[in-house]
This record gives sequence, C-alpha cells and structure tokens, in this order.
Amino acid sequence: LTLAERRTRYSIIAKAPVVVCGHEPAAAVFAQLGATYRTVVAEGEMASYGDTIAMVEGPSRAILTGERVALNFLMRLCGIATHTRGAITPVAHTSLQVVDTRKTTPLLRRLERRAVKIGGGANHRFALFDGVLVKDNHIAACGGVEAAVLSARRNVHHLQGIEVEVKDLQEVRQALGAGADAIMLDNMLYEEIADAVAVIRASGRHVTIEVSGNLTADRLPRLAGLGVDLVSMGGLIHQATWADLSMRWGAEDPPI
Amino acid sequence: LTLAERRTRYSIIAKAPVVVCGHEPAAAVFAQLGATYRTVVAEGEMASYGDTIAMVEGPSRAILTGERVALNFLMRLCGIATHTRGAITPVAHTSLQVVDTRKTTPLLRRLERRAVKIGGGANHRFALFDGVLVKDNHIAACGGVEAAVLSARRNVHHLQGIEVEVKDLQEVRQALGAGADAIMLDNMLYEEIADAVAVIRASGRHVTIEVSGNLTADRLPRLAGLGVDLVSMGGLIHQATWADLSMRWGAEDPPI
Amino acid sequence: LTLAERRTRYSIIAKAPVVVCGHEPAAAVFAQLGATYRTVVAEGEMASYGDTIAMVEGPSRAILTGERVALNFLMRLCGIATHTRGAITPVAHTSLQVVDTRKTTPLLRRLERRAVKIGGGANHRFALFDGVLVKDNHIAACGGVEAAVLSARRNVHHLQGIEVEVKDLQEVRQALGAGADAIMLDNMLYEEIADAVAVIRASGRHVTIEVSGNLTADRLPRLAGLGVDLVSMGGLIHQATWADLSMRWGAEDPPI
Amino acid sequence: LTLAERRTRYSIIAKAPVVVCGHEPAAAVFAQLGATYRTVVAEGEMASYGDTIAMVEGPSRAILTGERVALNFLMRLCGIATHTRGAITPVAHTSLQVVDTRKTTPLLRRLERRAVKIGGGANHRFALFDGVLVKDNHIAACGGVEAAVLSARRNVHHLQGIEVEVKDLQEVRQALGAGADAIMLDNMLYEEIADAVAVIRASGRHVTIEVSGNLTADRLPRLAGLGVDLVSMGGLIHQATWADLSMRWGAEDPPI
Amino acid sequence: LTLAERRTRYSIIAKAPVVVCGHEPAAAVFAQLGATYRTVVAEGEMASYGDTIAMVEGPSRAILTGERVALNFLMRLCGIATHTRGAITPVAHTSLQVVDTRKTTPLLRRLERRAVKIGGGANHRFALFDGVLVKDNHIAACGGVEAAVLSARRNVHHLQGIEVEVKDLQEVRQALGAGADAIMLDNMLYEEIADAVAVIRASGRHVTIEVSGNLTADRLPRLAGLGVDLVSMGGLIHQATWADLSMRWGAEDPPI
Amino acid sequence: LTLAERRTRYSIIAKAPVVVCGHEPAAAVFAQLGATYRTVVAEGEMASYGDTIAMVEGPSRAILTGERVALNFLMRLCGIATHTRGAITPVAHTSLQVVDTRKTTPLLRRLERRAVKIGGGANHRFALFDGVLVKDNHIAACGGVEAAVLSARRNVHHLQGIEVEVKDLQEVRQALGAGADAIMLDNMLYEEIADAVAVIRASGRHVTIEVSGNLTADRLPRLAGLGVDLVSMGGLIHQATWADLSMRWGAEDPPI
Repeated sequence: LTLAERRTRYSIIAKAPVVVCGHEPAAAVFAQLGATYRTVVAEGEMASYGDTIAMVEGPSRAILTGERVALNFLMRLCGIATHTRGAITPVAHTSLQVVDTRKTTPLLRRLERRAVKIGGGANHRFALFDGVLVKDNHIAACGGVEAAVLSARRNVHHLQGIEVEVKDLQEVRQALGAGADAIMLDNMLYEEIADAVAVIRASGRHVTIEVSGNLTADRLPRLAGLGVDLVSMGGLIHQATWADLSMRWGAEDPPI
Repeated sequence: LTLAERRTRYSIIAKAPVVVCGHEPAAAVFAQLGATYRTVVAEGEMASYGDTIAMVEGPSRAILTGERVALNFLMRLCGIATHTRGAITPVAHTSLQVVDTRKTTPLLRRLERRAVKIGGGANHRFALFDGVLVKDNHIAACGGVEAAVLSARRNVHHLQGIEVEVKDLQEVRQALGAGADAIMLDNMLYEEIADAVAVIRASGRHVTIEVSGNLTADRLPRLAGLGVDLVSMGGLIHQATWADLSMRWGAEDPPI
Repeated sequence: LTLAERRTRYSIIAKAPVVVCGHEPAAAVFAQLGATYRTVVAEGEMASYGDTIAMVEGPSRAILTGERVALNFLMRLCGIATHTRGAITPVAHTSLQVVDTRKTTPLLRRLERRAVKIGGGANHRFALFDGVLVKDNHIAACGGVEAAVLSARRNVHHLQGIEVEVKDLQEVRQALGAGADAIMLDNMLYEEIADAVAVIRASGRHVTIEVSGNLTADRLPRLAGLGVDLVSMGGLIHQATWADLSMRWGAEDPPI
Repeated sequence: LTLAERRTRYSIIAKAPVVVCGHEPAAAVFAQLGATYRTVVAEGEMASYGDTIAMVEGPSRAILTGERVALNFLMRLCGIATHTRGAITPVAHTSLQVVDTRKTTPLLRRLERRAVKIGGGANHRFALFDGVLVKDNHIAACGGVEAAVLSARRNVHHLQGIEVEVKDLQEVRQALGAGADAIMLDNMLYEEIADAVAVIRASGRHVTIEVSGNLTADRLPRLAGLGVDLVSMGGLIHQATWADLSMRWGAEDPPI
Repeated sequence: LTLAERRTRYSIIAKAPVVVCGHEPAAAVFAQLGATYRTVVAEGEMASYGDTIAMVEGPSRAILTGERVALNFLMRLCGIATHTRGAITPVAHTSLQVVDTRKTTPLLRRLERRAVKIGGGANHRFALFDGVLVKDNHIAACGGVEAAVLSARRNVHHLQGIEVEVKDLQEVRQALGAGADAIMLDNMLYEEIADAVAVIRASGRHVTIEVSGNLTADRLPRLAGLGVDLVSMGGLIHQATWADLSMRWGAEDPPI
Repeated sequence: LTLAERRTRYSIIAKAPVVVCGHEPAAAVFAQLGATYRTVVAEGEMASYGDTIAMVEGPSRAILTGERVALNFLMRLCGIATHTRGAITPVAHTSLQVVDTRKTTPLLRRLERRAVKIGGGANHRFALFDGVLVKDNHIAACGGVEAAVLSARRNVHHLQGIEVEVKDLQEVRQALGAGADAIMLDNMLYEEIADAVAVIRASGRHVTIEVSGNLTADRLPRLAGLGVDLVSMGGLIHQATWADLSMRWGAEDPPI
C-alpha cells in the first residue's frame, strides 16, 4: 500500500462555538470518494472550541481530496445555523415564527433552508412553484391588488395559498377584500403594524400576518409582542458568515 | 441541393374531429432540427376531418426526421384534450371543477396537465412538493387523521394547504377537527356525499370539497348538483386514447 | 426511528384482470429510493381482481415517495400488454405476426415495445436507424419507387433490409423490381391484398409481406387467411388505456 | 478591444498530402466558442503540402481556445481518410467493397466511420443494435451454428439481417442451412475462400460473402478476383496515424 | 399581449455603497429567459445608494422569473468585491498581494474568485490540479518535508510549482532544502515572519513567501512592511456578507 | 438460467508483444455491466504473443456486450504504451525526459497521457489551465515576447510557470529577459540547440529547456547528449497504432 492508499482516521474539529449542521453533504462528499464519515455531534447540537464534530476514515488520498469541499459545506451551513440560533433565541418562547426568504446562494437553497431550520427558524416558500407572493411589481403590472390576486387564483390549484405584500393600511384592506390567505406588512413602523394587525384580525378571516423588510434580530422581541405570526429575515442566510472548522490527521479521541 | 436538403412544406392534418393541443412540443421538435412550425388551428379550438392544424417548412430530411416524434406528442395531447372536452361539456355551465390527478405518463406530466386544461378541465397539485394530500396509507402509518395532519402541518409553510382523503362521515368530522383545508370524499355514494357536504358547510370553515374514486364522466352532472367544489378524474388522462393525425407532403392550402 | 423511517411492507394489487407487465421500471423506481421490490406474478401472466402482483418493502417514506411513479409505469404497461393479448388471441394459433409501430409515447418506446411483446405481439423496427421503410413522402421526394430504394441502398449496410410501402398493384410491381426486402400493403381491400400476395409470391423472391392502415383487431383472422406475414397495428399501444392497480399498506399474504 | 477580443483570421494548413475530412466537428468547436469556420477544401478532396484547407475568423481568444481540440479532430479524421484512400485505390474499379469494423476509438465511432466513407470505404454495422453477427463465442455459447442463428432470429425484426462468422467449409454449409443472410469467412486461405464462394453461390440463395481477419491492403486485389462481396478491415481505422496540420495566424490568401 | 408578455424595463438599484460585480451570471440568467441585460455601472466601479447598476428589458414574466436568481448572484458577488476592496485599500500602494483560498462556496468558486479580483485582490491556485501546496497532513503522511516534496515533484510537470506550508524556522530550512518554489508561513508571529523572510532571502533562491492563518485586514499593513510577497485570506470570501440590491419596475433614468 | 445469463469466464489475450495498459477503463466497462475483471499482467509489464493479460467472469450477455468497448480501450492504450516504450528505451538511462503534447484524441486525453507514462514517458501540461505556453500566435498577437509573457504573468498565480516557444537565439534571449520559467526550442538544428543551451545555462537562472518539432525517436539519443531537459513528441500518442488483442471464451489457464 502506498501512503495515499493507507487507511487513516481524521477528525473534524470546531475552532469556535457552533451549532452543528451539514453532515449530509459532507458525508456524501466522502462517500463518493470511498471514505466513511461518522457523526460525533448531532445536527442542531452545540459544539465548543476543540470539539470533534465528525470523524472520517479511509484512504488518505480520498480524504484529502474531499477535505476542502466537505469543510466548505460544513463551514457555510454551521455558519447559518449558528447565526440563526443567535437571532431566534430571544423569541424562542413566543409563538412568533422567524422564516427565511429566497435570498439564498444559487444552487444551495435546499441546504441553506435546512440550516435555518436546524438553527431554530422556519421556512417560507421554496420557490415560485409552491406558493404565491404578490409583490409591488406584480401589483403594478396587473393594475391593482384585486386584479393581481384574481389573476394568481386562476393559475393555482386549491391547495396553494396567496400572500400579498402591502405597504400601508389601504393595501391591507385591498388584500383582505381580494381574499388573500396571508398578508405581508413590508417596511412598516411598529404603530402601522399594530393597526394592520387590528384591521386583519377584525375581519374574522383566517389570514397569516407576516412582517418583512431588512429586519435585524434585535427587533424580533417587540414584533413578537404585536401579535404577528411570521417575521421573514433574509439575513438569517445572507448575513451569516462561515463557522471555523478544520480537519486533523489521526485524532484519536473519541475512538471511531 | 440534394433532395434531403431541399426546402419543402408539409401539413399536419386531422383525420377525425379533435380539440387541438400540443403545438409547443411539436414546434420544439422541428426547431431543434432546423425546420419551422406554424400553427393553423389554435390550441383549444376544434378541428374537423381533413383540417390542416399546422404547417411545417424546411429541409425534407429535417422534417421527416422529426415527423414521428412530433406527431406522437400531438396525437397523445390532442387525444387527452378531446377526451377531457367530451367529459366536461355537460357540466361546463356549472361551478363544478373537474381536475386531473397524478396518474400521468412518466416524464410527460407537465404536457398532459396542460392538455387537460386546454380541454376545459383544471389541475390538482403537480407533485408531492406543491400540496399535501393525506391518504389512507398516511393515516394508517401515523395512527389517525389528527396525528397525520399535525405531522404534515409541521413540515409545510403557511401557504401550503392540507387536504384529507376520507371514506365516511366519521373521518369527515376528524378531518374538520384537524383543521383540513380541503376534504376529499373517496368512493362515497351520492347520499353519503350529500351528508358530508352538509356537515362540512355547517362547520362554517372555508373547506374545499373534492369527490374522487374511479369516476366516469356520466356521473358529473349529478355530482355538480350536490354542491361539491371539485371532482378529480384520473381517467381524463389515463383513459384517453390518441387522436388520429398525419403529415402530408406539399399540402398547399392554406399557403404558409 | 420515525414513522417515515420504519420498515413496512406494501402490496401492489390488481383491481381488474390484467396481463402483468412493468416490473423492471417499477423495481428501478423503488431501488433508487432504497426500497425492495419483489415480483409475485411474473410478466406475461394474468392476474385477477384482488391479486397481489408485487410486494414492496422498505421505509414508508421511500415507498410512498415512489408509489405514484411506479404505479404509473405499471398501469400503462399492464394496459398495453392486456390490450395486446386481447387483440392477438384469436390469431395466436396462426403464423401471422402482429407488430407494433413507432407510434409510441415519447421517451417510453423501449418499455412500450416490450409490453407489446409480453402481450403476445412482435416488434417492428425501433427507429430510423435499424431498418428502412420507404413511404409515400419519400417516394414523392425522390421521384419514384426505384429511385427511393436505390438511394436508401447506398446508405445502409448489407445487414439492413429495405421495406416499401405501396398502395396498389402497380407499386407492388415497382417495389419488387427495385429489390425490396419487404413490402407493406397500406390501406388495401381484402381482394387487393390477395392479388398483391399472389404477385409477390409468384416472383420467387423472398419478400416479407406486411399489411397496415388503421387496422382493428377484428380484422386479424381474415388477414391471417390471406397469407400475409405481418400486420402492423399502432393501436396495440396508442389505443390501450391504463390497467387499474393500487398499492396497499401492510398486506400480509403472501408473506415476503 | 483587448488583443484577446480583436477579430482575426487564421488558416488551417496541410503539412503533408491529405484527404480532407473532419470539417463538421472542427466547425462545431469554433461555433461553440463564437468563431466562424469556413471550408476551403471540401471533404474527400486531396490537399497538398501548404494548402489551406479551412479558415477561421473571430476573436483571437476564442480561436486559440478551440485550436487544439479542432486540430485534434481534423488530424485524426484526415489521417483515417487518407489511410483508407490509399488502401482502397487499387480496387476502386472493382465491385469489391472494403468496410470498417467496430474497432473504433471509444466515443468517436460516428466520426471515424464517416472518415472511412470519405476515404472511399464503406461501413459495416454501427453497433450491436443494427445488425446481427454470430461469432465463435456465440456459437460456442449456444451449442452450434443453427441454434445460434435461430436464437438471433427470434430477437430481431424482419428488416434485420443475420451474418455468421465461419472458419471452414463445414461451418459454411451450416450457416447456409441455418438461413444466414451473410457469411463472413474468417482467416481463410485463398483456396478455402474460393471453395466457400463456390459452395455459397451454388446454393442459389442471395447471401452476402464477407472476408475478414487481420487483412492488409496488399491482399485486396487478389480477394477482389475471388468474387467476394465485402472485405472488412479494422485497420482502416486503428492502423491509421494522424495527418499533419497546423493553424497559422493571419494567413491572407485566399481571402475569407 | 397578456401582461406577462408585455415588454417592460426594470432597473437594478444599489441600496448601499457597493463595488459592482456579477454582471456575467446575471446577464446569463436573463438571456436564458429571453430578456436583455445592460450594464450601467461597470464591474469594479463603485455605486452609491440609489444608483442603477443595470437595466433589464423584456417580457415581465421572463424578468420576474429571473429576478431572484440574478439578484442572488449579484448580491453575493458585490458583497465579496466590496468586502475585498475594503480590506485591500490600506495596502494597495504596496507590493503586497492579498489572495483568496479554496474556502469558497461549493459550485461558485470561479465566480467568487473573480469577485476577489474585481475587488482588488489576487487569486491563489484554483484547485488541487493547478498547483501543489504541501500541508501538515501531507508532511505527516509522507514522514517529512523532503519526502513530501519529492513525492509531489514526481507527479507534476515542469510548469507546476510546489509550495510548502511551514510553522517554524526549522521547517523553513527543510522546505528550502527540498527545493520548494514557495513557502507559506502559517500562523507565525511578526518576529518569526521577519526571521523566516531573512533566512529565505539569504538563500539566494527565487522563492515566493506567503503568510496565512486566520488573518484579518487590520494586520495587512504591518505584514506589507515585512517583505512578504503574498498574504492569503479566506475571509475575503467567507466573511463577506451580501450587498443590498433590489429590482424596480419601470425605472426610467437613464434611458435604455 | 438462459445461455445469456449463465456465468462464464473469458480471457483477454495478447496477439503480439505489448506493454500492457488500460485495465482501468476495461474494468469499468465490465463493472457497469455486472461482470468482474481481473488483471493478470500488471500495467507497464510486457506480455508476449498468446499471454492472457486479464480474465473476465460473469453472465455471457454482459461480457459479450462489453467486449468490443473494453478491447477498444485496451488496444488503443496498449498501442500507445508499447510505442512509447520503444521510443524511450534508448534514452532511458539518461536524464532526458520525453513528454507528450496536447495532440490527443478528443475525450481520451487523461487515459492517453497515462499510457505515455506507463510506457516510460512523462507528461507535459494537461490543458490551457495548468501551465502557460507562449507560442508564435500569442507573440504575434501581443506584439512581442516580453509583452506576451507579462500579459500571461498577470493572469496566473505564483505556482504556475510560463514557458516560451522560440525559433532562434534572438528569441531565446528575449524569453530569458522576460523571465520565462521554461524555453521550448522549436524546430532548431542540433547546432542551434547547442548554442541555445549554452546561452540559457550561462544566464544562471533556473530554466527548463525543452526541444520540440515533429521529432522522431531516432533523434532522441543525440538530443540527450546536448543537455536539454525535455523533448516533447506528440507522436508518442498520434503515431501509435493499436495493439492486437482478442477475447476468448472459456480459457482455463490460469484459473481465476
């Protein structure tokens, strides 16, 4: 056996506190190269500096070939899960759901959404095909809220809900009148949000209320108090930086 | 120029009355081969025996290479559109919607669903990702209607509806209790359907009522009278046979 | 183990008498998802109402994910095999071969041809690359039967036969003169067919005689009596509707 | 415009006498990169040392990116066409056809067969799907010539011929008895070939006679005299080396 | 024309100061959907809040379909270019080069490297195939610096350089002795770096000196003063967050 | 079990002396078809007429399906390895390295380069991305050697070497002045080469000296004596013809 073919064991180590996420793509990378990946810290658990989060065993060539790609997945996904956990913890005891948006890295949406969920957030629609969100551009193109909602309704089946993005109380009322299943309050002040919630709840219809608009985590507790159902934060994903992990040769503990 | 390279015009002819459908894939076949496809009878319109529904112009080799594939698309899709039109016409003046199911030819679902719509029907969900239908197998696996619906609710976002398939009034009540957005009455007698509709409407909740179960077109008018919203018929697609079309060399009328 | 991951056994049941066909793609669907498919009724055998034709075992999530796709293959292919068996039975004791055409569902030709064979029919050429059939459009483009056959002969190797489609006795004689290996009598009356067979056999050359032209199964016995070799019927495939099958949870008999 | 983007004209030059072949893949390479390829010497024509066989015009970056790949196609294909032309010329006035075999470079069979044709040869079957050649391994596996031919006949349609490879007169007679459409005389001496031809022609059946077995071009004239139909020579392709071509910047004559 | 088909013009707007990057993938997204993308602010230029950086024109359906994907590319790549520009500006007047690493988003490496270059950084090797970097794991596996370098040298061609990652002066001397073309000083203190530079320069050989190890931008000026050639910073890419851009309907200025 | 499914053993036999190469793609062909390939003569070893170089075991259908493709790989690659071994042996005891070029069969470059290495040669760069070779066309386009080298240097990283192709002593000096890492002496006479070597060595810089230009093997010993480092010979690959191998049924010795 050459050095490259000799079986060796490597460990993947956290170099800062992280919420662990990304075992699935990391394991897939090594499986394709003929090495075995074993989870040590489960997804969603915290790891501290120096903790081994996974072990890899197989021919050195295979492991060193896959190292960078696997770490790139893990560092990105742990980064998002850790960032999301931090944002969500202050409102974790409330009924408020914090959801992602479609602002995700091209080709990685499925994995990044899962990282949000692992971090404690929830997911909005995946893409244009599994939910309708009528936005300002659509309203402008169709000539009004009601026309836009009707046009959407004709093109979806009975299990697909329609959400309307609104910017003031007048549009809230138009959305209610058009039969929206959910209303997104975009870039509104706290007082406006409170008024909108009152108007929507007074309608007696079952409508999901979402708040959005470049929100940061510090605003979540106050929004939770206003009775909204969802807050969407693209930044759960696009403002997350990578977690710091590395792979070490021959780490012996814990035994594989 | 060889014979094969010489530009010629061919016409595609109906050999029986058909509702025309399938221009998109037929045109794509010829475009890929360097020939031009021009619609003569628009999608959704009827053509009679002998009518030219489309013209193809280009090198003979290209057209004869694409002939069979293009006709196979057209004959299948005209077949579905024609079959659907026949089934739906008697209830076209009512509010009843007749929808397809996921019983579609592997790889052709998008095209076959479109043929149903061209024929006058409507579409149910496309696949498992754009709507939840809780069926007997899921209820059995989860241990009850309520458990199954709750489990589904945890895994979908706020714009995705959940439908429950039920077989008797007891399950209708369980589905209502579990907060189903739609209820599918499967293989019920007319009287049972009438009772189920009464129970659901009495709940005051906005619930879509669907009827299914190996239905044939002759039963549609009576179902329309019972106040259900949807009838799903897989047979719109899987009981349709192909329409009869052929391609002829040098047909001159109408000029291209 | 979650419910989705728990191993369960499902059975696929015939809901009407069918000639079984399609185990290969059905097994491939489940194999790709990590479930095991076991044949109970072999391809080509009949199943009656209620018979289990195959068992599937594996995690419920995998099986319910593959259910619809696998059934769509099986229902389409059992449908063709059953339809073909019905058409062919009355002439099964004769030397007449009933063959399919290239009128097949785009992308499914290999599977649909196999269903014809399972049902008792035989196969014509697969595509343009494994046999030459000179048709009216080619004859028109080349300026005559002989020119068309010569042009084809220059472009094929010595193991590829050339068949000519003819519509009357004059063309039969031209095809013979051009050295056709097979002659297709298209849309001829019984008397014309009898005359053509006499002329061809009198030539002393080994020529396959095929009859075609929107034929239905009831005409097969009389054609068998006329001494033709082949009858081609596109309807074996395109006039077949789907067989009725369903998948049931936990069917216990026979044990897997 | 940077140097890389500036449009320039390059010429492709023969550096030895060649039969030109390969314009199609060369043009496709440059088309994909946004440059234009113009044929100067047509396929099948001879070019002498220094002749420009094609011109390429477009951005220098595109042309220099495609240069090596395009030349690799051209040098390989001109090599085969030139080698074939040399082998075939001495028997070009006879009825003997010299054909290739399936000994072709993986993935390049279509192009290499075309080069043989451009060089003056003809093509044998493309692959296992467009003709049956029963060889020693098949005969051994089936237990005899007749069993092997019958088994093949059951699996092909009426337009596919069956050829049998034989090594002596006894097998010639078995092949004739089994109804072979063609017989390949493998590695026989001239006298044996003459005897075999006599036996086959005496049968009165229309059977193609092919000779094969590591043949070199110098043996072709004598084989032509023996009355065989085909000689197959894998070496037309696998003993051809590359022709010498190069691409030059700014060649001005002839103007593009 | 339906609303969806009507041609409209949209503008892409910066909502914060950014270094522009990403026109290529954004244009490709819209081209694939049949819309036209026109650059307003060139790559590498700064845009301020409210500036239009590109215009898109075409059918609304096409533009709204591509909007999210195109913006996701642009926001990610502008984010990296802007982050890199900020890090590099303080040392832009020095000869120090700041380069990226292979810590890049899976599948987006080519684009992210380009964003580093647009931002003013330079690129390290692309992958394992275009440069050799002998790291601690390789040295451990091979049993020493010299063995590792020799093994690498046997497997690369004469145009590929070999770099060795070292952690102290002893390894610096081993790397020099083994003939390394470049030496990476990993996680060293400023004084150690100064000593290593002195040792390497004293050798008289042409060796590139690189510094690495979780470096932040504030350390760059001092490193520039130590005479090293390169500093590699993975954080140019993985610590960059997205820039804020949005697309607006019908922006009129500047005219397209 | 049918004949096709019965497990059988076949052997692959050398029909002339060859340097064995190609086990990897041959094994991959059979693995994909469900048969097992076992190496008998290792890559790089010689086999004589009649030697078994590999055994294949599995269902006859699988083996006969893969036979031609696997042999086509083996015959091509053994051909190159054998041809290379012959060319290189006379200079094997010297320090001269004989390398391939990018004149390789489209899509087979990786395998053909490996065959050169197995035969005793070495490899030049793989493609445009792993090394820079400035050639006459580039020099012409950039307006001189120095401009071309500078332009290249700006676009590569610090581990990528730049080689310059020169045709006379003046260009040798320009290449040295521009800082080339390697210099290719193209189509020079022996005396010119000797002069160029002297000039380059006198510069004191570490520069690799390569000789190229339609070289044949007989010139290698004299070139070895001139002190050059590399000779590149495209003919190692493109002037190699196929080695003669065949597959035989049921060869029993050695036992598998």
